[in-house]
Amino acid sequence: MELTGLSFLGTRRGSGDGAGFQAFNPQTGEALPPVYHAASAAEVDAAVQLAAEAFASYSQTSGRARAAFLRRAADGFEAHKQALAERAHLETALPMPRLLGEVGRTAGQLRMFAGVVEEGSWVQARIDPALPDRQPMPRPDLRSMLRALGPVVVFGASNFPLAFSVAGGDTASALAAGCPVVVKAHPAHPGTSEMAAMILSEAVAAEGLHPGVFTMVFDAGIEAGAALVRHPLTRAVAFTGSLRAGRALMDLAAARPDPIPCFTEMSSGNPVFVLPGALRKGPAALAATVFGSFTLGAGQFCTKPGIVLVPEAPEGQAFLDELKALVEKASPFTLLTPGIAREYGRATEVRAAENPAAAQAALPEDAMGCMAGAKLFTVGLDEFLGRPALAEEIFGPDTLLVHCNRTEDYVRAARALEGHLTATLLGDENDLAANAELIKVLEQKAGRLIFNAMPTGVEVTHAMVHGGPYPATSDPRFTSVGSLAIYRFARPVCFQGFPEATLPPELQDANPLGIRRLRDGKPETH
Amino acid sequence: MELTGLSFLGTRRGSGDGAGFQAFNPQTGEALPPVYHAASAAEVDAAVQLAAEAFASYSQTSGRARAAFLRRAADGFEAHKQALAERAHLETALPMPRLLGEVGRTAGQLRMFAGVVEEGSWVQARIDPALPDRQPMPRPDLRSMLRALGPVVVFGASNFPLAFSVAGGDTASALAAGCPVVVKAHPAHPGTSEMAAMILSEAVAAEGLHPGVFTMVFDAGIEAGAALVRHPLTRAVAFTGSLRAGRALMDLAAARPDPIPCFTEMSSGNPVFVLPGALRKGPAALAATVFGSFTLGAGQFCTKPGIVLVPEAPEGQAFLDELKALVEKASPFTLLTPGIAREYGRATEVRAAENPAAAQAALPEDAMGCMAGAKLFTVGLDEFLGRPALAEEIFGPDTLLVHCNRTEDYVRAARALEGHLTATLLGDENDLAANAELIKVLEQKAGRLIFNAMPTGVEVTHAMVHGGPYPATSDPRFTSVGSLAIYRFARPVCFQGFPEATLPPELQDANPLGIRRLRDGKPETH
Repeated sequence: MELTGLSFLGTRRGSGDGAGFQAFNPQTGEALPPVYHAASAAEVDAAVQLAAEAFASYSQTSGRARAAFLRRAADGFEAHKQALAERAHLETALPMPRLLGEVGRTAGQLRMFAGVVEEGSWVQARIDPALPDRQPMPRPDLRSMLRALGPVVVFGASNFPLAFSVAGGDTASALAAGCPVVVKAHPAHPGTSEMAAMILSEAVAAEGLHPGVFTMVFDAGIEAGAALVRHPLTRAVAFTGSLRAGRALMDLAAARPDPIPCFTEMSSGNPVFVLPGALRKGPAALAATVFGSFTLGAGQFCTKPGIVLVPEAPEGQAFLDELKALVEKASPFTLLTPGIAREYGRATEVRAAENPAAAQAALPEDAMGCMAGAKLFTVGLDEFLGRPALAEEIFGPDTLLVHCNRTEDYVRAARALEGHLTATLLGDENDLAANAELIKVLEQKAGRLIFNAMPTGVEVTHAMVHGGPYPATSDPRFTSVGSLAIYRFARPVCFQGFPEATLPPELQDANPLGIRRLRDGKPETH
Repeated sequence: MELTGLSFLGTRRGSGDGAGFQAFNPQTGEALPPVYHAASAAEVDAAVQLAAEAFASYSQTSGRARAAFLRRAADGFEAHKQALAERAHLETALPMPRLLGEVGRTAGQLRMFAGVVEEGSWVQARIDPALPDRQPMPRPDLRSMLRALGPVVVFGASNFPLAFSVAGGDTASALAAGCPVVVKAHPAHPGTSEMAAMILSEAVAAEGLHPGVFTMVFDAGIEAGAALVRHPLTRAVAFTGSLRAGRALMDLAAARPDPIPCFTEMSSGNPVFVLPGALRKGPAALAATVFGSFTLGAGQFCTKPGIVLVPEAPEGQAFLDELKALVEKASPFTLLTPGIAREYGRATEVRAAENPAAAQAALPEDAMGCMAGAKLFTVGLDEFLGRPALAEEIFGPDTLLVHCNRTEDYVRAARALEGHLTATLLGDENDLAANAELIKVLEQKAGRLIFNAMPTGVEVTHAMVHGGPYPATSDPRFTSVGSLAIYRFARPVCFQGFPEATLPPELQDANPLGIRRLRDGKPETH
């Protein structure tokens, strides 16, 4: 797979005229060839125009046709697994096993959505037959189903160069729904992005789809992304990244002459509530589990546990001591970009200045620009509640321990939380019974409640919810992971009084696709 | 039902200190007692605080309990049918039969949602069981379902004083989802609003629910509404009304520190495409049908056909002549408020000035401030496409005929349309076959496509979609009418690894509620 540095505009590639930029190896600081070229305003426009053109035919393809396309793309990822992971490793410093796994996950997501749209019931077909004899007026025949929303702009994420990027969950779910996708590649891993785009483009061509079904633009700055969100033909946006960038995109989408749905997954502290049963099982094991989770992927996970609440108790202190020891002896981590490392340094220094008891891993004198040490901060509950900035996410291998006198204080802490992707309870079943109120409060604060596991590790399944109230995401009614993610990119359309032959097959009486449907609100019997 | 003029704040009523206003009888101009009092900022805050308090218990009630509550409210509407319609008639000048029907529809909507939540499958329960032996890592048990979003602010609409107001579809769907509702009563029908609020409040009390489940504030200005949308505890907004007001609410919701979902149903021209088969059936009958639809409810329907496309043809001219005759001899209409009548006058005068061929009904010399005549404007397709202002909705009994040379031009016209609630095709099955491309384009422009019926008349069923791309609504992924409307006010929550006994009944293995669920993405077998 030869890299060119040029944007993907259907059957052609972008020009090499735009401002150049390169990926950097975070471990060595060396620039990685080739030079990538920012898409011009005209190229950004061309990408969305192509997507809108493609929408006319692609939105009308069958679930089976889209499944074949998604599976072909998945095959492509599996065929290039090693090359993808190697390039991603150079660009992100994430370990090879993790990246090989991420390629598999990317292919798996594409296959999951292929299964969903091939089966077809996801469109939620509903049929309310005519009632010609109803008084005082006959009822017309009404049939509705979900249809694709239109061209979707997807922003690649820095922390998952494959599974949340060019062909990640956002792209897979939008393509599955019948929406062409325009990707804004993340500038920290352009080579991985180009390889992924080649695989997708080849699948588009091989399946005979309109070349505008998938396009991708490069840009190291914010111009191309902003232009994509503002473009009149863009119908929805999906983004995973920082609160600052995500909110900026939300504001752009909301300020359009015609506001459009903008799903941004942004910022989450993923609070962990340690209950007595968990401490009783042994503070050392618990400390190792927590440490492993908040440093996984160098702490660059959306679901990193950045807030850990522990009760003051003999075991609470032991847990803290164990955790401190793990942090202090931790090897340095390599973060994704110098920018992320700088921001991690800045944010943790602010926190450390106010927190003399903080534990920090040492860094070598000659640490490169992307290196960072694990850090552990501790704070009392009242101070935590009094200073909302303490709840703000820091991206990197740190966490904040919040000491509570008693677990009864947890409800108060939970009520003060903003939205998070996850909330975790560690303990035994007696703890759960004693904390029913806490669970109810947390249900309102997070998209996923977890019992006795760490929040890192997001399964791609039908029941997964990777979402939550703001600032975790822009809209708590949706998820960006799991098969429910497709519902971000579809809208219901109702057909009233149309003859059978002119209806989409999903709505024809004969049900040629054999999907599950509701008739007068009840499941059809076969 | 004695009217007091005071806001509803749980077990107490608002003060009489706020600025006073009264309803006016649009037919006579007389002020209707009592004086209504604007809610103070403190009262607005109290209403939302109460709703948030109520949320803790109300969101956890069973579907059965909520169904009992909704049915009790429906009973109340039916018991007070005559009184409600009479007061609404005084406040809106809408005809009694229509208003009696609207009370029935209001009760019917409450009962429909009662049925939906009592049955329970609407929560979309999904279970992905643990796979303890999966390699390389076990899969945890994941279960998700929809949960209530939080306190919802509902704005009463002027044009449906019952079915889209205090206890209308927005309120019914939010209450069904488990969300407390704070209503901002529409100042044009405060008496009808107070009566509806009394019925709802009595149902809340009789069912032993938290008094904050339903609250309502009065205000003739915009302060209370803006404060409700800005309130930190408000979790969603629902509104039906003008584009200007709806967009202002969208912007307020989007500008919050934590943006919230804001569903606004605003503006729609509901284009009607007349195809040859419809003209062949007789221009006179067609003209009567079109006239009846755009003047129904004095043209104050969200689904009023404000744009009618006709081909130049002998029958086209005959149709126009018939329609002109109907308009010119039409009796005057009484609009809902002087403000609506003024705006109708202003907007139609602008259009008439550019359209000397316009047909207008005469108004009596002594016409009251709310009176308005039917109006018919005509324009050629090129002028229509060149002047986007012509596609803007005018609220009242007018329509715009767009002449096309040939029906082949319809695709071009359709492509230029913004979002609408509906798009209608009138013709025969041959016309449909000849216009497959038109249908595909219209699918992207409207929430409901109609064949051979007028768009006015929105059935409340499971397949209904009363939504559409902006500016028809703020978010085309939702509907405000029909049982799908509940999905505006719910969000998925995933429970990972929770023991059976601590799960909501909807997610327990035993399925005690007997709802439809997905297990590993497939329907459970019973």
